[in-house]
Amino acid sequence: MAPEQPQPHRTFASDNWAGVHPEVLEAVARANVGHAPAYGADAVTEQALELFRSHFGGDAEVYFCFNGTGTNVVGLQSLLRPFEAVVCADSAHIHVDECGAPERFLGSKLLTVATPDGKLTAESAASRVQGVGDEHHVQARVVSVTQSTELGTVYSLDELAALSDWAHSQGMLVHLDGARIANAAASLGVDFGAFGRTSGVDVVSFGGTKNGALGAEAVVTFRPEAATSLRFLRKQSMQLSSKMRFVAAQFVALLTDDLWLRSATHANAMAARLGHGITSVTGGKLAYPVQANGVFVVLSAAVVESLQAEWPFYVWDEDTGVVRLMCSFDTAESDVDAFVARLGDLMPGR
Amino acid sequence: MAPEQPQPHRTFASDNWAGVHPEVLEAVARANVGHAPAYGADAVTEQALELFRSHFGGDAEVYFCFNGTGTNVVGLQSLLRPFEAVVCADSAHIHVDECGAPERFLGSKLLTVATPDGKLTAESAASRVQGVGDEHHVQARVVSVTQSTELGTVYSLDELAALSDWAHSQGMLVHLDGARIANAAASLGVDFGAFGRTSGVDVVSFGGTKNGALGAEAVVTFRPEAATSLRFLRKQSMQLSSKMRFVAAQFVALLTDDLWLRSATHANAMAARLGHGITSVTGGKLAYPVQANGVFVVLSAAVVESLQAEWPFYVWDEDTGVVRLMCSFDTAESDVDAFVARLGDLMPGR
Amino acid sequence: MAPEQPQPHRTFASDNWAGVHPEVLEAVARANVGHAPAYGADAVTEQALELFRSHFGGDAEVYFCFNGTGTNVVGLQSLLRPFEAVVCADSAHIHVDECGAPERFLGSKLLTVATPDGKLTAESAASRVQGVGDEHHVQARVVSVTQSTELGTVYSLDELAALSDWAHSQGMLVHLDGARIANAAASLGVDFGAFGRTSGVDVVSFGGTKNGALGAEAVVTFRPEAATSLRFLRKQSMQLSSKMRFVAAQFVALLTDDLWLRSATHANAMAARLGHGITSVTGGKLAYPVQANGVFVVLSAAVVESLQAEWPFYVWDEDTGVVRLMCSFDTAESDVDAFVARLGDLMPGR
Amino acid sequence: MAPEQPQPHRTFASDNWAGVHPEVLEAVARANVGHAPAYGADAVTEQALELFRSHFGGDAEVYFCFNGTGTNVVGLQSLLRPFEAVVCADSAHIHVDECGAPERFLGSKLLTVATPDGKLTAESAASRVQGVGDEHHVQARVVSVTQSTELGTVYSLDELAALSDWAHSQGMLVHLDGARIANAAASLGVDFGAFGRTSGVDVVSFGGTKNGALGAEAVVTFRPEAATSLRFLRKQSMQLSSKMRFVAAQFVALLTDDLWLRSATHANAMAARLGHGITSVTGGKLAYPVQANGVFVVLSAAVVESLQAEWPFYVWDEDTGVVRLMCSFDTAESDVDAFVARLGDLMPGR
Repeated sequence: MAPEQPQPHRTFASDNWAGVHPEVLEAVARANVGHAPAYGADAVTEQALELFRSHFGGDAEVYFCFNGTGTNVVGLQSLLRPFEAVVCADSAHIHVDECGAPERFLGSKLLTVATPDGKLTAESAASRVQGVGDEHHVQARVVSVTQSTELGTVYSLDELAALSDWAHSQGMLVHLDGARIANAAASLGVDFGAFGRTSGVDVVSFGGTKNGALGAEAVVTFRPEAATSLRFLRKQSMQLSSKMRFVAAQFVALLTDDLWLRSATHANAMAARLGHGITSVTGGKLAYPVQANGVFVVLSAAVVESLQAEWPFYVWDEDTGVVRLMCSFDTAESDVDAFVARLGDLMPGR
Repeated sequence: MAPEQPQPHRTFASDNWAGVHPEVLEAVARANVGHAPAYGADAVTEQALELFRSHFGGDAEVYFCFNGTGTNVVGLQSLLRPFEAVVCADSAHIHVDECGAPERFLGSKLLTVATPDGKLTAESAASRVQGVGDEHHVQARVVSVTQSTELGTVYSLDELAALSDWAHSQGMLVHLDGARIANAAASLGVDFGAFGRTSGVDVVSFGGTKNGALGAEAVVTFRPEAATSLRFLRKQSMQLSSKMRFVAAQFVALLTDDLWLRSATHANAMAARLGHGITSVTGGKLAYPVQANGVFVVLSAAVVESLQAEWPFYVWDEDTGVVRLMCSFDTAESDVDAFVARLGDLMPGR
Repeated sequence: MAPEQPQPHRTFASDNWAGVHPEVLEAVARANVGHAPAYGADAVTEQALELFRSHFGGDAEVYFCFNGTGTNVVGLQSLLRPFEAVVCADSAHIHVDECGAPERFLGSKLLTVATPDGKLTAESAASRVQGVGDEHHVQARVVSVTQSTELGTVYSLDELAALSDWAHSQGMLVHLDGARIANAAASLGVDFGAFGRTSGVDVVSFGGTKNGALGAEAVVTFRPEAATSLRFLRKQSMQLSSKMRFVAAQFVALLTDDLWLRSATHANAMAARLGHGITSVTGGKLAYPVQANGVFVVLSAAVVESLQAEWPFYVWDEDTGVVRLMCSFDTAESDVDAFVARLGDLMPGR
Repeated sequence: MAPEQPQPHRTFASDNWAGVHPEVLEAVARANVGHAPAYGADAVTEQALELFRSHFGGDAEVYFCFNGTGTNVVGLQSLLRPFEAVVCADSAHIHVDECGAPERFLGSKLLTVATPDGKLTAESAASRVQGVGDEHHVQARVVSVTQSTELGTVYSLDELAALSDWAHSQGMLVHLDGARIANAAASLGVDFGAFGRTSGVDVVSFGGTKNGALGAEAVVTFRPEAATSLRFLRKQSMQLSSKMRFVAAQFVALLTDDLWLRSATHANAMAARLGHGITSVTGGKLAYPVQANGVFVVLSAAVVESLQAEWPFYVWDEDTGVVRLMCSFDTAESDVDAFVARLGDLMPGR
């Protein structure tokens, strides 16, 4: 349920309600000099690719895309034949929020798993690996995890490695939806490259948009045989930008002077502050631990209505009353404190 | 065959080698204030939509997309069932340059027609309407024209209306690929809205990118029943931008103070100047009349090689030796004159 | 888990392990006279279509197909755009047993519902109708029921009508997978036509194969606008037989002298006898009520192993130990009694 | 344009207007004993597979399907990624007569070549191999030939090998649409196995239906890595028969006592007789050489109309007036002679 009255000031609705980080816009403007080859054969793109390789390793292959749905679909395509299926959490963006794009364009079934916190385990994923070798059943081939998850939690490196090890032991592959990969890396205090090959991940959807870009995502793969098809899959899947240098420039900005990390660390800190504030004024618990830039908490309908009048945010689950509050690179401490104060005012007994 | 050494200065390679018009970048920066609802529920998007409606009519439905291939595929989807086919010129971008995206995502066959100049007529299109009602054959349902064409020519309003009338008389619909719609409108001295309902067109792919945007395209439809599905088709087809205001801002710039027209008029004028210059120094004829911003001419391999060393451009047809020279909003008279002078130097007898 | 040693005698593995009813083979042989127009423009096909209309109503449109998966996919295609989804039981054949053909060829998501008995209700189906009008989510458009269900249960006419009424009230449509429609009709003592328009069903997958045909299924629709596309969808979906008269002849046989009903009634009676026999020798309960031609019961692994050595059948659920025992038109009372006797011998205490 | 009045006697309309060879029906009846495992795990299927391997080699993998369109689509799927394309003659069944099923289900573009006689050559096929490695263009990956062709001609073994050699030298693969493979083999005096690996063919669509089966086709592949996916692709593509033994029995009949060869040799001989008769009474030439079981000749509209009143056949090309006359296993010399006599009566001057 969307807030009805969008506000001119900062909100907790989504990290994609935030604008573009000024350093990103400056980089875009800096790239706007003269003519440059289209479709990625330009110097800015080469610079951005080099920056990616400095994080993910020299043999990572990187393909810039437009948006998260497109990036997920293109990346998954490189791993799947249409009778092969994807195991994912039932809260996964690819399952819930992409209007069926994966089924439509992969031709594949998603095998979903209920989770307590948005995270798969080898045990829960294994429950959907059935009918192996039986032509009547789709064949589970990819495990897709979201890092950080749609519920604001983060896989530890150990959790990720254990899941990957299991997947590979089954002849399966691992896709990581990193729409908020920067928040996860900042949360764990690691470079985002830690979520690539070293964690056994085969393909990453790397998200720049929610991290302060205008619109910049990337498929990162460590499988050479996937790379041979990815250039064509990206183009055929309508994700190839003609004026690529302006997508690349956004990544140059994010990956220069650790802008990605500064922004993610800040957003995470604001979420932590918000989480603490909320529990302190409500006396209750949060729905999930705050491990990245989102806070989930059950609020009463009356409280939600009052708060949304001023602070747009989303009710995440109509049935349980869980709401989602997202922080972004530009969330201010004053935003958090004002929200918490207002929430405090709305608590019974105040 | 791509030029090997991209140059820092202006080229004739493509109007998507040009950068972003400064007024567009300014509009993007202006939109970067605070938070705004994602996915198009923001004020800048509303402003851009209103501007579109002021050109195409108040009941035009408009859906912003990322790139031309995506826009064509989304627009065509709204008109087609998978056993229905698209009649197009064999030079059409949807047939030649989209890596098979239409077949892949529409499931439809493209029925191609050889043309002398990139333009369909009722007669030539009719040659591909066969097996009507016969379940063994795809059913021709949409005629797709490109305006201006991939060969730099422009349909007159009469030609367009005649083709549309014929199509509708056959129970068929009309799609217009307007990747360079601004150049066509400038060429004919009409508003681009003339290529919409008044010409019998059912769906327009409106191109902003080649007209000076960073990356902004739009599906414009005049069929209410198509509009009911287009919102979903855009999202499912991976063409929905989260930070939509920054796509919309580009259109606001293009449609303000006739920036679109100023840019297109200039690019067309540069192409005309280039065409005249070429014929004057070669004494020969152009491959097609210069009616928009592209010039096509047969040059010898030796001349091409010498020219490309300095001025990147594409050989359009390896067999015939036709090369393509594109002008853009930022092409300078001095660029044209220097190119022509260099060509003159390379002519035999000089 | 399939039985390892197929036996020459009758089994309880599946009604498609049974052969062809002799009257069906005779009809096929009778149709083998001289030349006849291909693809359904022949007299036998017209006769079969007329027989279908005599059951389903004069304006039912009928399209013969090869197999159940193809019939389901073709029928559903006539109701769906790719961003629209199908609500079905999580035990539905379209979800579990078709190797993802629906997702692949419809492009649509299946929204599954856990059920106690394989049957949907308005309440359970409604739980999956979410995000209506929200472009990020697939739009629930079709409710698909199986009659009789994969678990051997049967929707009453009231249950079916209540579900259809609810679906239509939501602007949704109803598909009925009638792979065992004859068994359901026999069970309720109604003509199978009762599962068509009069129950609010929009498209039926009519199954002949499990009822004693060699291989004959049909899409039956009551929506004229769907019928306009079904001829093409069937051909494009690779379900159009060239020598159609031999598919049609099978239906002529099934629909003549109530062969369909005689066979289904017998198979149902054998299942009832089997169910009674099992409960009498085990003293336990069946997993689901026996309402058609299948019996589901929990048996120990040791008992299963002993029984399967002689009587092939399938373990339906490895986790719960439920096995499935199917009866067919040619199951004999002696088969049932021998199986029950053998089971009795294996019971503890015997 | 279809003949209006189907006739009860033999026609020249198509080899699929013919019925089922009696030996095939007998084999089907013979297979109808007791229960047998479904989906191909039965003894008759094993027998049929063994017969296929005796012709195509012991490591050929064979998958029975329902119809020619399905067989072509399944076989091609095993060779193609969706951005890869198929080069074929513009008269190819996959291009003209399958309602766009290849584009729909492969997602691939067909690159068509005009031919004088329905046959591709390395030279003509090479003309469609363009933009190799360029992500904007589909990548030609498979050459598809029809043997015998849709125009009644036959590739010699040398022609086939030359084309295959060229294809493999380009990193491409070869698909052979053998809807009339028996007629081609009979024509050349070779076993149909000669059109498999020994001719460099990677996947064969083996046609039984036009050779006298009820409905039986098969994908035959010599690529082990394709075989790993074919079982799933067949099921997902809705081509897996449940009562497989009755499909297999048809092949057992065709491949026993050389029934396939007897039938094809006869049909070819009838076509040769018909071709000679026609040229003798018309004094003109045939449109294509008669190398299999089809005769193509230009007849005037008046003659066509008179002939069709009695003898259904198809006008193949409305523009040129070419008609197609097909012979089948049951065409009698008396049919041919009566048709020729009638044609003679209609000739001017008679």
